[in-house]
Amino acid sequence: MKATIVGATGYGGLELMRILNNHPYINIHSVVSNSYAGKDVKDVYPHLSGANLPVLAAMNMENLEDGADIVFFATPSGVSKEYIPQLIEKGIKCIDLSGDFRLTSPAVYEQWYMHPSASQDYLNKAVYGLSEMNEKVIEGAQLIANPGCFPTASLLAMIPIVKTGWIDENSIIIDGKTGVSGAGRGVSLGTHFSETNENVKAYKLGKHQHIPEMEQVLSDIVSKPIQLTFSSHLVPMTRGILCTIYMKLTETVTLEMVVSMYKEFYRNRPFVRIRTDGTYPSTKEVYGSNYCDIGFALDVRTNQLIIVSVIDNVMKGAAGQAVQNVNIMMGWTETTGLELSPLYP
Amino acid sequence: MKATIVGATGYGGLELMRILNNHPYINIHSVVSNSYAGKDVKDVYPHLSGANLPVLAAMNMENLEDGADIVFFATPSGVSKEYIPQLIEKGIKCIDLSGDFRLTSPAVYEQWYMHPSASQDYLNKAVYGLSEMNEKVIEGAQLIANPGCFPTASLLAMIPIVKTGWIDENSIIIDGKTGVSGAGRGVSLGTHFSETNENVKAYKLGKHQHIPEMEQVLSDIVSKPIQLTFSSHLVPMTRGILCTIYMKLTETVTLEMVVSMYKEFYRNRPFVRIRTDGTYPSTKEVYGSNYCDIGFALDVRTNQLIIVSVIDNVMKGAAGQAVQNVNIMMGWTETTGLELSPLYP
Amino acid sequence: MKATIVGATGYGGLELMRILNNHPYINIHSVVSNSYAGKDVKDVYPHLSGANLPVLAAMNMENLEDGADIVFFATPSGVSKEYIPQLIEKGIKCIDLSGDFRLTSPAVYEQWYMHPSASQDYLNKAVYGLSEMNEKVIEGAQLIANPGCFPTASLLAMIPIVKTGWIDENSIIIDGKTGVSGAGRGVSLGTHFSETNENVKAYKLGKHQHIPEMEQVLSDIVSKPIQLTFSSHLVPMTRGILCTIYMKLTETVTLEMVVSMYKEFYRNRPFVRIRTDGTYPSTKEVYGSNYCDIGFALDVRTNQLIIVSVIDNVMKGAAGQAVQNVNIMMGWTETTGLELSPLYP
Amino acid sequence: MKATIVGATGYGGLELMRILNNHPYINIHSVVSNSYAGKDVKDVYPHLSGANLPVLAAMNMENLEDGADIVFFATPSGVSKEYIPQLIEKGIKCIDLSGDFRLTSPAVYEQWYMHPSASQDYLNKAVYGLSEMNEKVIEGAQLIANPGCFPTASLLAMIPIVKTGWIDENSIIIDGKTGVSGAGRGVSLGTHFSETNENVKAYKLGKHQHIPEMEQVLSDIVSKPIQLTFSSHLVPMTRGILCTIYMKLTETVTLEMVVSMYKEFYRNRPFVRIRTDGTYPSTKEVYGSNYCDIGFALDVRTNQLIIVSVIDNVMKGAAGQAVQNVNIMMGWTETTGLELSPLYP
Repeated sequence: MKATIVGATGYGGLELMRILNNHPYINIHSVVSNSYAGKDVKDVYPHLSGANLPVLAAMNMENLEDGADIVFFATPSGVSKEYIPQLIEKGIKCIDLSGDFRLTSPAVYEQWYMHPSASQDYLNKAVYGLSEMNEKVIEGAQLIANPGCFPTASLLAMIPIVKTGWIDENSIIIDGKTGVSGAGRGVSLGTHFSETNENVKAYKLGKHQHIPEMEQVLSDIVSKPIQLTFSSHLVPMTRGILCTIYMKLTETVTLEMVVSMYKEFYRNRPFVRIRTDGTYPSTKEVYGSNYCDIGFALDVRTNQLIIVSVIDNVMKGAAGQAVQNVNIMMGWTETTGLELSPLYP
Repeated sequence: MKATIVGATGYGGLELMRILNNHPYINIHSVVSNSYAGKDVKDVYPHLSGANLPVLAAMNMENLEDGADIVFFATPSGVSKEYIPQLIEKGIKCIDLSGDFRLTSPAVYEQWYMHPSASQDYLNKAVYGLSEMNEKVIEGAQLIANPGCFPTASLLAMIPIVKTGWIDENSIIIDGKTGVSGAGRGVSLGTHFSETNENVKAYKLGKHQHIPEMEQVLSDIVSKPIQLTFSSHLVPMTRGILCTIYMKLTETVTLEMVVSMYKEFYRNRPFVRIRTDGTYPSTKEVYGSNYCDIGFALDVRTNQLIIVSVIDNVMKGAAGQAVQNVNIMMGWTETTGLELSPLYP
Repeated sequence: MKATIVGATGYGGLELMRILNNHPYINIHSVVSNSYAGKDVKDVYPHLSGANLPVLAAMNMENLEDGADIVFFATPSGVSKEYIPQLIEKGIKCIDLSGDFRLTSPAVYEQWYMHPSASQDYLNKAVYGLSEMNEKVIEGAQLIANPGCFPTASLLAMIPIVKTGWIDENSIIIDGKTGVSGAGRGVSLGTHFSETNENVKAYKLGKHQHIPEMEQVLSDIVSKPIQLTFSSHLVPMTRGILCTIYMKLTETVTLEMVVSMYKEFYRNRPFVRIRTDGTYPSTKEVYGSNYCDIGFALDVRTNQLIIVSVIDNVMKGAAGQAVQNVNIMMGWTETTGLELSPLYP
Repeated sequence: MKATIVGATGYGGLELMRILNNHPYINIHSVVSNSYAGKDVKDVYPHLSGANLPVLAAMNMENLEDGADIVFFATPSGVSKEYIPQLIEKGIKCIDLSGDFRLTSPAVYEQWYMHPSASQDYLNKAVYGLSEMNEKVIEGAQLIANPGCFPTASLLAMIPIVKTGWIDENSIIIDGKTGVSGAGRGVSLGTHFSETNENVKAYKLGKHQHIPEMEQVLSDIVSKPIQLTFSSHLVPMTRGILCTIYMKLTETVTLEMVVSMYKEFYRNRPFVRIRTDGTYPSTKEVYGSNYCDIGFALDVRTNQLIIVSVIDNVMKGAAGQAVQNVNIMMGWTETTGLELSPLYP
């Protein structure tokens, strides 16, 4: 299968190159970059010397449709929606790592992203690529909207208990902590080393564009509108997301019941690992891998369930899950090309 | 005024030496260390060469009561309660940076600290040293229980609105993030560089010994029991605490009303700085200083007020506030010896 | 091929498990740990949940010789020499990642390591496993002394020019910088996060036990004794070594001549990458991979050649090179199981 | 004394504000910024809320000469030389933290800085502000060229032994390691968090503009030209410089002789601390302070003396030394306003 990576020199694209280089069934056919067109990948990223990669191609429709079976978009929001409709029409499969096709309502998109949405038609064609939830529809999809990093970590941790109905769905608070690579490769004071190192910062409290994405999925599950509170924090590390999720219990359940319900829910899912011993996962324990690790605490005094969920934002939160989705789409073993243990320490 | 520092070679004691070295009215009379008795401070900490400090004395009552007007305890919980009663009896003032005298109920102490409490008598004598709240009683105190790091950051951020009554006091959730120095100087895998760097970890969810301390203060304010949910996280930096506090509003208030109420509340408090422009503080903005910076967001969709509060855990969260309390106690200007700008970057 | 990993829970052993898990021709037969015998690997290292690994076995001869075709020792110096002779006698191949079999002279070992050496007999049997230099003898070896991390980075950078004779061999100065994982998993103040973060430290200047290892190899090459100056520095990161090597040129050569000589020297070596464009590699560019990247500068004013060499200390500096050596030993493709791109960012 | 700070919002200017805020004899009269003219300092740097600072003024001659007794330039090279001559003519003292007035030869400046030099006239008027070396001439100076960060750390470590004549002056190699704040506040990929964290990089090997500065000082001392080899490395921390200096001994001296010679040389210098116990200083031991700590190793095998010198690049390497120079210039106690202990941990 021949793949084109658009936005190849951003961090998402870079990770796609790392994974696909070792994927047995996918060939990197073309790599497209707005900023570095015409250059050799190894002149931009010397660490990829040795990988056999094509020269970076310019960002235009001709290059995107030329010979690829599948196109990965690892581009900022607002870009992929300009190209994907035409590619789909030509029968080329698309995986969009940006937010352009994740929301089903153009109005909601425009409210949170503050620029024009893709058309309703194509939003309807898109399948939300949370692999563990949507396996069945991913199988036949032409266009996959790969989930955001925070929604991936949070939704995998919330879906089982929201489905079960043991919690008050309007009590959900998610406190997200992310490494700096989530902000991408664009330079700014906010990601300048001397301002970021030895520093924790909160940002976009209650305003993050990942909020409607999470609410849409949860609302669909319970068939009524759910609103949640989400805040994001930048911590001084490169990779990793940890979400601490607070939910009010409405049923009398024990920690053991919660844990075994999750264990059962994810029984056959190789990339979701449930902590059964009362410990919580840390981000380093999934570093460089496609795992999502989930642990639990129950504060019986306040009747709060606290769930801790970690992923590598560049892997399960972006490129890794994109490849996982292609594996599912094509009927290959879900873990193909993703059998990497976390790098530790 | 002659001061003795007990636990001088731990991080709290170290910071006391840094501050008191430049304090115009306090002299370091004696430094006491269990681990390094008999050594020169500069042989343990070469960065203090140049400071004129006494040789480290052994930990015993004779050394503690010898000549000091005031004794700072920067010791693990369970230590100071063995010495403070006798010192108080001899008219020596004590500032305890550990948790031994913070809780008014021995039973609650024993439940959360899991070892024997100080006697009720001496708990009654202790004044809780949250400087901005308890100024009046600190003035005449003999024994000050210096607050914990998380309670300092959280309580300063919560007290005004809890007093105002605009929130549901049983909806409080505090998500705390701390640098690694909060764990002290004792070596362990949990603070080993290779396991801590590039890693975020949750710990003691719903079980942190700072929980009853916060509940006690808030309950006193509203004269009814408040229970809150608190979780703590270790982030890969040395200094700094950021608490993100979630509260359900019960009144129709605007962000502007909240901000100006806080601004007014802390009008004359030099160490509490309120953000009035919709931004949130980051830990680096108080690094090495005694400030507590507080910012706000209002999620009108979910009616959640989100407060962000930051301190330097070693300063306002420990040694800095201890000195601030002595300043108040002695009737000196509150900022004496603490006029340090944050170190940035 | 059935492999036993001794010292499996240290960082070297951990990386061996990560690599061998995905190695097509090697099976992890047994994992041995002094500290965690009887435990499940995933209880010590939750990030390895999902890997199918045997229970940790105790450290004794019976466990080491039981069923393995090859035994990897990732143990502190002084351990492997107690077991390896017996294993070799039983025809079990051994790869020693410690320093016990690297030096050919017991007297030199004892001078630098300050405890008793292995016997001369077994030192003679050992092949020094610098893969790119010793391929021919590695092929038939029973016992491989895997090189130290600093020697790997330094020797690969020095051997070509020392062979060529363009430099004064007695002018060599190596300034090494290493991440903290090089110090292993044992806790100490020197690797405590709060003392290591935001800090650069020099250590063992002129006294590092890797010095005689480098001198032995270079002296053999030129058939006369070479002595060099080496200093090591701890930098606040987890993985990576960068060596800056200074050599006085004795011939009139240009930078281009140097670069093309190195390029030719390592023409067929997949893991050594030579910078030809005047840039220097950084440690992140080999993170998590088995590469050694080498760059050059020529200070024509002082006639100094400066070589910059980087490796991942846990991979090419330990576990990665060990597996590369097994691949060579067994006649497999050198890169088998090691085709990992560096993790970036 | 009224001071104007030009380039106030860069890291050097920021540190000047931090120090001068607490300086008993200097008043911050005006703060000048190219990028933020018209803004309040606390809107750019919220951590300075509470400090009583003037509004940021635009960069023009009128603002610079308006009312100041002394002007500090914390500007990129090429800026101060446009303003300083006129200020000097008006009798306003100037301290230049940039490189514009450090070199005595315009030709050498232009070769290394690659833009036009200040005029020879004003270069002649400038006094090189290495406080410990040039005290006598600093006293009466009108214009001080404050030394570079690497030269400060290196020269203080080299001058005593170069004066003594115990080493071969043409054997000097300096391996410098610096935190990222040395690169300033300008954003770039080279200082982007995700590319800098967990990474060590070499840069400008043999080409750093600090080389001629060090050579000029040393050559003057021995009255013959000295050339040295210098390389610089970026390490993942914010503040701190560590220089490892290698010199070939020409005399038979012991480590004790070297140490006691240094101890004597810096006997009355409060900011230079000599290690006498065979240990080496680390950067954290001077963090946030104006100290330069120096330690020694002697490799008797290779006859190399290795000197380790550390400073905080923003303090002794920039703003701290600038204030120290003003103290000397004005006849105040050298340590006035600089009595800060290092921040540890």
